[in-house]
Amino acid sequence: MTSSITYRPIGVIHSPLTVPGEGPPQGAFASDIPGEVEVFPEFSRGLADLSGFSHLYLLYHFHLAGSAELIKTPFLDDTPRGIFAIRYFNRPNAIGLSVVRLMGISGHSENILHVSELDILDGTPLLDIKPVVPAFDYREDVKIGWLEGKIPKDR
Amino acid sequence: MTSSITYRPIGVIHSPLTVPGEGPPQGAFASDIPGEVEVFPEFSRGLADLSGFSHLYLLYHFHLAGSAELIKTPFLDDTPRGIFAIRYFNRPNAIGLSVVRLMGISGHSENILHVSELDILDGTPLLDIKPVVPAFDYREDVKIGWLEGKIPKDR
Repeated sequence: MTSSITYRPIGVIHSPLTVPGEGPPQGAFASDIPGEVEVFPEFSRGLADLSGFSHLYLLYHFHLAGSAELIKTPFLDDTPRGIFAIRYFNRPNAIGLSVVRLMGISGHSENILHVSELDILDGTPLLDIKPVVPAFDYREDVKIGWLEGKIPKDR
Repeated sequence: MTSSITYRPIGVIHSPLTVPGEGPPQGAFASDIPGEVEVFPEFSRGLADLSGFSHLYLLYHFHLAGSAELIKTPFLDDTPRGIFAIRYFNRPNAIGLSVVRLMGISGHSENILHVSELDILDGTPLLDIKPVVPAFDYREDVKIGWLEGKIPKDR
């Protein structure tokens, strides 16, 4: 079994959100929050074909996270929950996952992604980008556990 | 900027898939592939409340990945594509993201997740588990770039 795994940032998030806990709990509630995903030029070739996708997964490191907690009361509830049943950042491995909308790509190396629906703090190290493909990722009849009834109905 | 980020596995995937490239390209095409997600007992408290969710994201390390490629011809196409526009495992940071269906939880520490729709190789180190919450993650009118027309229509 691998005992530790080391990654290096492929870029950095530029965001108007600077204070932990200040942002929306999810980008789905943040349609008017724009930002830029700066991919380091050495990786910019890997962005080929990305512009055809409207939405991307960003995987990133919660760089301001504190010590891991296994039980935590989430923002949308008043009952403590298991960390793997919530999205809170103080996790055993502080990896974040967000969906953003891709608005355009610019930059000298075509390495700046303009995005919206952003829920990520400024300065966050980027680990990976994957395209959102509903046929791969979306399921019918999803049960959402403790979140049932706690999410605004217009979503 | 953080120069490197180190994570430790929180568990390991037990799967009938043992040969890279042998499995389905995505779990959505693998509804009959079951497996077990063994979460190390020290993290099992974090699994509280998980049983109410039908689907989970697994984040894991592609432990058999080779050197990163920035351009690669994906399984579903015959044209080379940028690595961030495909899901291929030889990525700059070899992090995998899969959706699985949670069938049940067992084990002395309630730390064994029984799952289906599995597309992950046996022995894969697990990094994180997050609940699938459509209101957070799903979007309407998603454009899928080069994948348009290449995915079976019954998905």
